[in-house]
Amino acid sequence: MHTPICDELGIEFPIFAFTHCRDVVVAVAKAGGFGVLGAVGFTPEELEIELNWIDEHIGDRPYGVDIVIPNKYEGMDANLSAEELTKMLQSMVPQETLEFGRKILTDHGVPLPEGDDNALQLLGWTEATATPQVEVALQHPKVTLIANALGTPPADMIEHIHKAGRKVAALCGSPKQARKHADAGVDIIIAQGGEGGGHCGEVGSIVLWPQVVKEVAPVPVLAAGGIGSGQQIAAALALGAQGAWTGSQWLMVEEAENTPVQQEAYIKASSRDTVRSRSFTGKPCRMLRNDWTEAWEQEGNPKPLGMPLQYMVSGMAVAATHKYPDESVDVAFNPVGQVVGQFTKVDKTSTVIERWVQEYLEATGTLEKLNEAASV
Amino acid sequence: MHTPICDELGIEFPIFAFTHCRDVVVAVAKAGGFGVLGAVGFTPEELEIELNWIDEHIGDRPYGVDIVIPNKYEGMDANLSAEELTKMLQSMVPQETLEFGRKILTDHGVPLPEGDDNALQLLGWTEATATPQVEVALQHPKVTLIANALGTPPADMIEHIHKAGRKVAALCGSPKQARKHADAGVDIIIAQGGEGGGHCGEVGSIVLWPQVVKEVAPVPVLAAGGIGSGQQIAAALALGAQGAWTGSQWLMVEEAENTPVQQEAYIKASSRDTVRSRSFTGKPCRMLRNDWTEAWEQEGNPKPLGMPLQYMVSGMAVAATHKYPDESVDVAFNPVGQVVGQFTKVDKTSTVIERWVQEYLEATGTLEKLNEAASV
Repeated sequence: MHTPICDELGIEFPIFAFTHCRDVVVAVAKAGGFGVLGAVGFTPEELEIELNWIDEHIGDRPYGVDIVIPNKYEGMDANLSAEELTKMLQSMVPQETLEFGRKILTDHGVPLPEGDDNALQLLGWTEATATPQVEVALQHPKVTLIANALGTPPADMIEHIHKAGRKVAALCGSPKQARKHADAGVDIIIAQGGEGGGHCGEVGSIVLWPQVVKEVAPVPVLAAGGIGSGQQIAAALALGAQGAWTGSQWLMVEEAENTPVQQEAYIKASSRDTVRSRSFTGKPCRMLRNDWTEAWEQEGNPKPLGMPLQYMVSGMAVAATHKYPDESVDVAFNPVGQVVGQFTKVDKTSTVIERWVQEYLEATGTLEKLNEAASV
Repeated sequence: MHTPICDELGIEFPIFAFTHCRDVVVAVAKAGGFGVLGAVGFTPEELEIELNWIDEHIGDRPYGVDIVIPNKYEGMDANLSAEELTKMLQSMVPQETLEFGRKILTDHGVPLPEGDDNALQLLGWTEATATPQVEVALQHPKVTLIANALGTPPADMIEHIHKAGRKVAALCGSPKQARKHADAGVDIIIAQGGEGGGHCGEVGSIVLWPQVVKEVAPVPVLAAGGIGSGQQIAAALALGAQGAWTGSQWLMVEEAENTPVQQEAYIKASSRDTVRSRSFTGKPCRMLRNDWTEAWEQEGNPKPLGMPLQYMVSGMAVAATHKYPDESVDVAFNPVGQVVGQFTKVDKTSTVIERWVQEYLEATGTLEKLNEAASV
């Protein structure tokens, strides 16, 4: 599965692993893939600590950092500092919505965070919060790729990253978005099908990937959404992708920091147990269906706010997911793709990558044999 | 792409084409594929005429017939004849729902069918209506496959078809349904991803196909949902399927009877312009989004009825789709998958199949070259 993008980035396999855990970034790199750290949960200072740790452990291998600057979000045109923006957005959260979020938690016996310190916070889902993260990332020479998860990065940011000698990637859910990325100078387009965990569109991978490949050629495309095996990587490459951008699987490795309660929930879930819901981030995001996601769907209840307002409400449920894993099991934030139905156990990262490579060779070997038999 | 199922069925390519047009069945067979006629719109007498015509034109090639017996539907336990069932179901349609359907049409300037002759009819979506269709099909020796589109066929029907020396196929949207099919003795399982046109589940093809393959092995699996190119067939085979079950593409061939207005709508549509809607059949069915599908989603409006009740209301819109194509363009029934975004023109059936074979060989050839380069 060694494609041209492997040589461009200096990796063995075009397996890109999105994760919030620094340990996974390092383990993936050591196994021949390319780890990408999701920066959204970190302040610039915290991110600096994470990247320093990765630099110390990853040897001379490259890795990536993923930021989130949506194409559209509340307050995007206000031109404010992160602090000012936070204050402005806080004033926009209706009290009724905040109370509704609190009520879901208390109805489930989940303790509310003291003094609301986990509610009403602004996550890194704006240009104002993502820009300092990029600045931190660019101080680390082994960060050779900056990816934007939710839109075309601003033109000056792309120029800035290019001047620092790094590549820019961006996710998309349609050929139209892919075109916009390519025209803006994005180096690698990640086409994420609706199966994917986290923010995703509605078009399925099998349809989306080849459309994006055709739209932006010769810009390289990574396939995302529904990949958790070597066969699925073979399918992606058959459809013209140069590699696989994966996420869900890395919640289910020994190196991940996810709680045993979360991993148990992922193992139990079938592919039909996920839902595209706006109830955590304000934009459609695929996650396990539970009482929290259902509550925001019911007629008569408050509707989810836009991004990033909704997280100012849901942040307390996300905090509870980690702080009170047992109590919050029915209201927790468990972003994951439909591929969750394939998971049966927690493995070492290196075991997963070895398995995928083996499965890929078997799948492509089967196709070769069919062609040989047909040509006899 | 010649797989074992090709030899079992006596065909060259494992390309299965679902269509309501007899001309397409014949054209696909002549091009080396396997045509399957959707029987649901035909009375037994009409079906007999269609099959006779196919028999005359298809030479000694085999073909299939597709029926619809859902796992669950209104009136399924009533044990009534088709006529009795129709009367019972007619009495169950709320006047308000019927009036709402009529209003959508009149608001769009679409003439209502005279004397409601196209409303309140029972389509072949029950065991009572499908059984006579199977009887007709079994009188035609070239019909070597009976497929059920929406559930596990009743045990006695499977036995009956097997005794007549024919094979049984059934569609599914989850490994659980696939298991039920396999346990009931279904010979070929069709795994249809949520991208697919017509009735489909929510799980995307790239995730669903390998799950079903694994679940029912060694029973052969056909991949459905999102296939409209040779690259997509290569992806399906890489994921363990033995062939491709396709539908949307055959609305867009010269031999199809679809109106130019419909074909124009399909050419214009992107992959984001389809929706899974219950507004025509009562079960989630993928189609082009338009004013009819939107009207049934709006809060305060009547909700779609179950299957087969909803078609007793929507039948008038389906009739208008064909009778008044220009007037009904915004309320027409246009079932199609997300693959619609790939269509740019209407081709001959033979041209499509030749193109798919060529694309398949290119896609698998690319994978072979990658493996060769890696092993040097």
